[in-house]
Amino acid sequence: MDRVRLAELLRALARGETTIEDALDRLRTLPYEDLGFARLDHHRELRNGFGEVVFGAGKSPDELVAIVRRLADASGRVLVTRVDADAAAALARDVPDVIYHARARLAVRSDRAPAAIATGPLLVVAAGTADLPVAEEAALTAEFLGARVERLFDVGVAGLHRLFAEQAQLQKAAVIVVVAGMEGALPSVVGGLVSVPVIAVPTSVGYGASFGGIAALLSMMNSCAAGVVVVNIDNGFGAAAAAVRILQRDV
Amino acid sequence: MDRVRLAELLRALARGETTIEDALDRLRTLPYEDLGFARLDHHRELRNGFGEVVFGAGKSPDELVAIVRRLADASGRVLVTRVDADAAAALARDVPDVIYHARARLAVRSDRAPAAIATGPLLVVAAGTADLPVAEEAALTAEFLGARVERLFDVGVAGLHRLFAEQAQLQKAAVIVVVAGMEGALPSVVGGLVSVPVIAVPTSVGYGASFGGIAALLSMMNSCAAGVVVVNIDNGFGAAAAAVRILQRDV
Amino acid sequence: MDRVRLAELLRALARGETTIEDALDRLRTLPYEDLGFARLDHHRELRNGFGEVVFGAGKSPDELVAIVRRLADASGRVLVTRVDADAAAALARDVPDVIYHARARLAVRSDRAPAAIATGPLLVVAAGTADLPVAEEAALTAEFLGARVERLFDVGVAGLHRLFAEQAQLQKAAVIVVVAGMEGALPSVVGGLVSVPVIAVPTSVGYGASFGGIAALLSMMNSCAAGVVVVNIDNGFGAAAAAVRILQRDV
Amino acid sequence: MDRVRLAELLRALARGETTIEDALDRLRTLPYEDLGFARLDHHRELRNGFGEVVFGAGKSPDELVAIVRRLADASGRVLVTRVDADAAAALARDVPDVIYHARARLAVRSDRAPAAIATGPLLVVAAGTADLPVAEEAALTAEFLGARVERLFDVGVAGLHRLFAEQAQLQKAAVIVVVAGMEGALPSVVGGLVSVPVIAVPTSVGYGASFGGIAALLSMMNSCAAGVVVVNIDNGFGAAAAAVRILQRDV
Amino acid sequence: MDRVRLAELLRALARGETTIEDALDRLRTLPYEDLGFARLDHHRELRNGFGEVVFGAGKSPDELVAIVRRLADASGRVLVTRVDADAAAALARDVPDVIYHARARLAVRSDRAPAAIATGPLLVVAAGTADLPVAEEAALTAEFLGARVERLFDVGVAGLHRLFAEQAQLQKAAVIVVVAGMEGALPSVVGGLVSVPVIAVPTSVGYGASFGGIAALLSMMNSCAAGVVVVNIDNGFGAAAAAVRILQRDV
Amino acid sequence: MDRVRLAELLRALARGETTIEDALDRLRTLPYEDLGFARLDHHRELRNGFGEVVFGAGKSPDELVAIVRRLADASGRVLVTRVDADAAAALARDVPDVIYHARARLAVRSDRAPAAIATGPLLVVAAGTADLPVAEEAALTAEFLGARVERLFDVGVAGLHRLFAEQAQLQKAAVIVVVAGMEGALPSVVGGLVSVPVIAVPTSVGYGASFGGIAALLSMMNSCAAGVVVVNIDNGFGAAAAAVRILQRDV
Amino acid sequence: MDRVRLAELLRALARGETTIEDALDRLRTLPYEDLGFARLDHHRELRNGFGEVVFGAGKSPDELVAIVRRLADASGRVLVTRVDADAAAALARDVPDVIYHARARLAVRSDRAPAAIATGPLLVVAAGTADLPVAEEAALTAEFLGARVERLFDVGVAGLHRLFAEQAQLQKAAVIVVVAGMEGALPSVVGGLVSVPVIAVPTSVGYGASFGGIAALLSMMNSCAAGVVVVNIDNGFGAAAAAVRILQRDV
Amino acid sequence: MDRVRLAELLRALARGETTIEDALDRLRTLPYEDLGFARLDHHRELRNGFGEVVFGAGKSPDELVAIVRRLADASGRVLVTRVDADAAAALARDVPDVIYHARARLAVRSDRAPAAIATGPLLVVAAGTADLPVAEEAALTAEFLGARVERLFDVGVAGLHRLFAEQAQLQKAAVIVVVAGMEGALPSVVGGLVSVPVIAVPTSVGYGASFGGIAALLSMMNSCAAGVVVVNIDNGFGAAAAAVRILQRDV
Repeated sequence: MDRVRLAELLRALARGETTIEDALDRLRTLPYEDLGFARLDHHRELRNGFGEVVFGAGKSPDELVAIVRRLADASGRVLVTRVDADAAAALARDVPDVIYHARARLAVRSDRAPAAIATGPLLVVAAGTADLPVAEEAALTAEFLGARVERLFDVGVAGLHRLFAEQAQLQKAAVIVVVAGMEGALPSVVGGLVSVPVIAVPTSVGYGASFGGIAALLSMMNSCAAGVVVVNIDNGFGAAAAAVRILQRDV
Repeated sequence: MDRVRLAELLRALARGETTIEDALDRLRTLPYEDLGFARLDHHRELRNGFGEVVFGAGKSPDELVAIVRRLADASGRVLVTRVDADAAAALARDVPDVIYHARARLAVRSDRAPAAIATGPLLVVAAGTADLPVAEEAALTAEFLGARVERLFDVGVAGLHRLFAEQAQLQKAAVIVVVAGMEGALPSVVGGLVSVPVIAVPTSVGYGASFGGIAALLSMMNSCAAGVVVVNIDNGFGAAAAAVRILQRDV
Repeated sequence: MDRVRLAELLRALARGETTIEDALDRLRTLPYEDLGFARLDHHRELRNGFGEVVFGAGKSPDELVAIVRRLADASGRVLVTRVDADAAAALARDVPDVIYHARARLAVRSDRAPAAIATGPLLVVAAGTADLPVAEEAALTAEFLGARVERLFDVGVAGLHRLFAEQAQLQKAAVIVVVAGMEGALPSVVGGLVSVPVIAVPTSVGYGASFGGIAALLSMMNSCAAGVVVVNIDNGFGAAAAAVRILQRDV
Repeated sequence: MDRVRLAELLRALARGETTIEDALDRLRTLPYEDLGFARLDHHRELRNGFGEVVFGAGKSPDELVAIVRRLADASGRVLVTRVDADAAAALARDVPDVIYHARARLAVRSDRAPAAIATGPLLVVAAGTADLPVAEEAALTAEFLGARVERLFDVGVAGLHRLFAEQAQLQKAAVIVVVAGMEGALPSVVGGLVSVPVIAVPTSVGYGASFGGIAALLSMMNSCAAGVVVVNIDNGFGAAAAAVRILQRDV
Repeated sequence: MDRVRLAELLRALARGETTIEDALDRLRTLPYEDLGFARLDHHRELRNGFGEVVFGAGKSPDELVAIVRRLADASGRVLVTRVDADAAAALARDVPDVIYHARARLAVRSDRAPAAIATGPLLVVAAGTADLPVAEEAALTAEFLGARVERLFDVGVAGLHRLFAEQAQLQKAAVIVVVAGMEGALPSVVGGLVSVPVIAVPTSVGYGASFGGIAALLSMMNSCAAGVVVVNIDNGFGAAAAAVRILQRDV
Repeated sequence: MDRVRLAELLRALARGETTIEDALDRLRTLPYEDLGFARLDHHRELRNGFGEVVFGAGKSPDELVAIVRRLADASGRVLVTRVDADAAAALARDVPDVIYHARARLAVRSDRAPAAIATGPLLVVAAGTADLPVAEEAALTAEFLGARVERLFDVGVAGLHRLFAEQAQLQKAAVIVVVAGMEGALPSVVGGLVSVPVIAVPTSVGYGASFGGIAALLSMMNSCAAGVVVVNIDNGFGAAAAAVRILQRDV
Repeated sequence: MDRVRLAELLRALARGETTIEDALDRLRTLPYEDLGFARLDHHRELRNGFGEVVFGAGKSPDELVAIVRRLADASGRVLVTRVDADAAAALARDVPDVIYHARARLAVRSDRAPAAIATGPLLVVAAGTADLPVAEEAALTAEFLGARVERLFDVGVAGLHRLFAEQAQLQKAAVIVVVAGMEGALPSVVGGLVSVPVIAVPTSVGYGASFGGIAALLSMMNSCAAGVVVVNIDNGFGAAAAAVRILQRDV
Repeated sequence: MDRVRLAELLRALARGETTIEDALDRLRTLPYEDLGFARLDHHRELRNGFGEVVFGAGKSPDELVAIVRRLADASGRVLVTRVDADAAAALARDVPDVIYHARARLAVRSDRAPAAIATGPLLVVAAGTADLPVAEEAALTAEFLGARVERLFDVGVAGLHRLFAEQAQLQKAAVIVVVAGMEGALPSVVGGLVSVPVIAVPTSVGYGASFGGIAALLSMMNSCAAGVVVVNIDNGFGAAAAAVRILQRDV
């Protein structure tokens, strides 16, 4: 339910063409539709500003197809995260116009460009090439949500001259998402160089005492650069969502 | 070193009143002064937009007095976090114009109001009364840095009608800092109600399997509300710093 | 050995048709039969009110077939949890009248309806669609044990209007089982809305810092809603067993 | 606000003596009063069946005195948990009729006996003498809430004949709270002997690899007795609240 | 090198048929042979009383075949633990007289019966059927080392009457190995019933908060029965080795 | 109740001087006396071979005095572990003939020498001087229980020549208790040198990543020396109890 | 860019054949080339003394081929760690002169012998045969970097005579890398025997409470032998890199 | 026992003034003296190149005085780490010529300058002022052992210009010890800038999710700079010992 249809409902109420009871009823029931196994939250766009995003992990290909179809009909634009190869194949076969980004494991179905976010750019920085799947999840999600995105990859702290050579790009960003695994030190360094918001994303890249990303997560939680914030391990999507919350305040 | 003094240096350089070598030298050495045990980073205000903040824990009262005096001379405004009673007494005795906020354990020395941040307000939400020390650390820090702050306390998830009764306050905030201990569920609920940035602060409030705030931290890292970001346990200061990074982009 | 056969034994004893020694002997040996690798505890129904349930994980298909056959002969009704596809096929092939619930991984063999539990209903609430396997394990187990079960799925805390729209269903439940992964906040919210017993089941749904369900488990252990109790991660069966312990007190 | 006063309000509404708007307004504002640092939730009695309970840890003696006074005025009966000696002295000095139970660290202020819960009894079982503070917290809380309580202490699994000698007491209980530290095995044994609800409370009793109660907590979460439920470490209060949720269903 | 050959060497020395230097040299070099990738420790039998045991995990089938062949030539009797199906097939094909125990994952090559240990019996107790692979690893290892072994399986604490029915068997054992997963409570109960040594073996049986056997391990480390000792998770071999250290003291 | 008094009871029963009912009654009630807060288990001596030992931690000085007095009257010999200075003073003041071992934190009350255990000796080995409190707890406990004890202290693995210089003492021990903190490697080395039982006791000696003894505990659980068994961190008492279980089998 | 080419650039600058600006530009851009997904750091050889090493895990075979080709062209010598079978096949097919060490999972491409490090030798010690993959990763990496390497394998602490028999080899080493899993005690023993640097490498060899190498890691971090240093679990490469940092100081 | 006295012994042996048996005996017994509670390892200086260092934690002031006196008599030079104020006072009172470094908690007794280590310098780098106690423990220990030490403090990664301003000092060091708490990122940055050995020391500086130094420890274990090695949390002594092992190879 988009703003247009909601305004129509409220106007009908104001004109006396519908009763309060009926309006309440439609408002109460419209926000989601019950598919039996999932309550689709079409209303969320009204509440927090961007469309329905589906968490693909733990859902069968058939379930994903059913959910994406329904959402595509309702709003035209759908993003599915954590889509494995089987689910991607099912979506490609059964839902028109779905594009799959294999490295980022994202499936996108979009019948129109998003409303562009005027502010920006959002800069996605990645420490190593192994962090690229998460970095791309962040970048593509933000683009789906209307943000202008720049990328700066493979600039880890063991060779900081690579980062310092790109100071100009850092300084002109409106928000920076920093993706790093292993020791997760890059957000602290970036946070010390800029005054804009820095969102740190630990990745599960590493082995042994990286404990699947815990080392990077703890490193980022304890950053000595003031005001660095953190999302879950490998959660590129969440970082993009946070960045868009920040950017769209200016629209 | 504030912008005024830096501009003077650069102007002198432009007028040929100083050499490039001398300018480089002053720029390189000015950023900090060596006290033997601490390199004061006066330059940081230039780089990331707010004055020097001192982390008080692990420093002796004498060390704190020396650092705060030097910083007060240099910039006029100093904030010290994690100040215990002994250090507070020493600062009150030896540095003029220091105010101590006991609950938040903050010492503030300020010779002028900060440059006000035009955007706002920043809303600090706390789940329970035991979370207030951290919530006040966030609120007072943000006020020190120039933000306009509102407070909404004791609205934990076991009685959500208390939160829902204040929906208006939630909806008009520009950024929301949510402070919660125990199960740490409040940021997820708030994150589902608003579209502005939500910064979650886990606290060490709880016992047993709260593990000093780990339960709340993990809960917030795994929030099902998209785009909630997290700082360290009890890090009210860091949440305020992150909020100011977001707010001051608009200045 | 059901109540009927036990009463017969005791009556025979009272009538002098058997000796105390013989009665003691039969009572001592009847409770279980030794299959070599498993002591079947037919007596448990007498002691804690519901039939034998078999934990299927870690048992070979052949072992499961042997156990279920023996139990089916002894009592007619058997429930097997954590049955994978191979074991399900073996049971379907070798034991008559077994029904397999794939999503919940339960195999049921029942020659009659259970004695219905008069109180109720038991409401099973699930936060997200990925939590459904565990929620269904709880619901189907409770039905096997005679409870009347209702379901309320996909009402997670990021969109609480979905839960509040179903307040009526919450209020009329006798016991509520709440199943949630990720941040596990839903039981705290439900626990604040109702006065009946609330049994929380953390699930392993999530990634990164969810640590296979630890985040949800800790969140539930630290619930600020008084009197919420918790079972093991993904233990839908245990939640149902606890709910039936509560409900059958009224029989 | 108790049921009597609420009924009066609704009756006034029905008689036209007040408007819907006014009634809504009073209902919305009545549930809590804002003390500045705490929102007292008088309404909770209506919602989940027992009076306000105050979590004493992390609150200053002065704050506790203010909260208890206000609550005593509003409802007559107040229970404060985790009260240390200083706070107990302040309450004894400044609030009339407060009784302090030192071992259980509970402060009780009650101007009348609670409405007795007809069902019962609630049996509190403790493994060792070091577990008694938590066991008494559970027992006294339940008594405050109107339950009939029996106690069975020092019956740990290293000498099970002590427990088996009291089988009669176990069998007649309506609900059993089992408190144990160290290896936390007692709830599994009790759960195998009875068919009524069993609520397990791990305690922090132990040393070394007990990790402050984690060993007992994990042991109880993994109980092989079906349907044993668990609350937080040392949470005697929570176990009593859960037991009362179960018992009062029958009123 | 067995006692016979060692005695020959020493006798030769005593008779002057060899020099001290030569004897020292042979003693120093005899204990192991260098295969390039493994130093076989034939001498260990002299030092701690039982033959070479090979830890099969992490070794390739080819490596295992080479090691077992060499050991078989040297001493006639070899035990290999943690042998997977591939390695078992390779051993069966390439080394004569190897017997594979699939459930316990042990491969045994023995050209004679072991010297029987006169004391005993060693009783292996297992809580559930899923614990049998570990219990059998313990029982078969002990038999390989010469002990007389009895088995008592499926007597977990949720139905303690099964254990108590076999008190006689418990009381006549010389040493008891108790194998249990999930909450790991059985060794505490057994330890309270007998005065002989009790060796507890936690297993990885369980799910969720059993954390691969940590719950059982911690439970056993914190046993309230005095003098229960513990070995590593799933380490049936180690428990048998410890039991044989105890039993053979009497030879 | 010692063997003498039990034999009298049984003889009276055999002579018809008491009834079976009365004998059962006395047997059932005699094992413990109810002090209100503790069930003293006098019977334990009959069941597992040594007298009552009181775990002193978490008990108030008054409670300890009451328990020790009662036990002293009943059996003459009492051992209390984990006795802090306050409790030691109270025991010294209120119970005759109590000896306090400050380093080991043991209080002993004994009116006669224990029945000596013929086998032995029990050797207690300690890695460093900081491990001595735990080592002495083990040694003194074993002596209280009748064992002959030898000590070998300060022979840690960083200077193994100290251990190897005392090989003779190692080789003649019947059982060895090895106490070590920090990296906990000593039991593995000792276990490789001897064939008798080796009981490893991790201590909390260390800092940083020793995590209060976890490092030593894990090291010992993973010992590559076959058949090393482990007790809880700092549990010198438990190690002694285990050693006595082993030694007294020969009596 | 090797030293030769850099010297040429600087000489051209000194001769006035290039401008400072141009030199700066080449220096700034030369260090790495942007492949789109990876910034190759050719300059690293200048900065820390050895050639580019590629971390193979998490990179696709195609990415590895592209990176290795480019590096081979630039410097002639490339080492790739953590190469699985698929990547090894791709490299063998698409890049000339690549040698694959399967056990160590290393791929080496080298068009010339490295500059030999004069000091040495570097001794790699391994506790068990299961530790050989990590030990070989260390040894082969060090050889690639020019070090002279000796190996001493299968000398774990359960049979220390094997180590002591090779004291001469220990004493003549310049640096020792000690590789051990399970209880990880070997570095402490070696560290007590020699005065040269000892680098400890924990491996993930073990099961149960070895927790994938955590037990060995903690053991090594807490070594009672002064000055033992540690690298990540299974990080043979890092140990070799550290050893070469030490050895090449003497060149 | 120093080299002089050992040489005398050996010379006496060569001259026939003592027997081999007697020499062996003295060599075997000389290495340590038995104080009853501690075996002083005078011989260690011979074995690994520096004098006896006493770990002060967990030893009583009286024990420390006894140990230091004996060592002072034997070798003249003693270093005691982790000396608290009480022990420092006792040492100052009872042992002549002891100097106490309060911040580093070191007590030094030295009757002569150490043999200077020719190589160097050893550079100790610290991230923040709160890390100074550990940094000074490292620096003073190294000086005690004869190294030439430089210090570079308060150069954390949030303001990297402070570190880069001192590149010259970094480049001329022979070994670098890097001390950092919180996110522990500094060793990775330093490791990327230099080719000499880098020894990382995590500190317990931080709060919340720093977990007493675990965050910094894990960060350093996972450093993306090749060849960074790590010691235990707060182990400044160990880092100095490792650095001296490296430096003295050149003597």
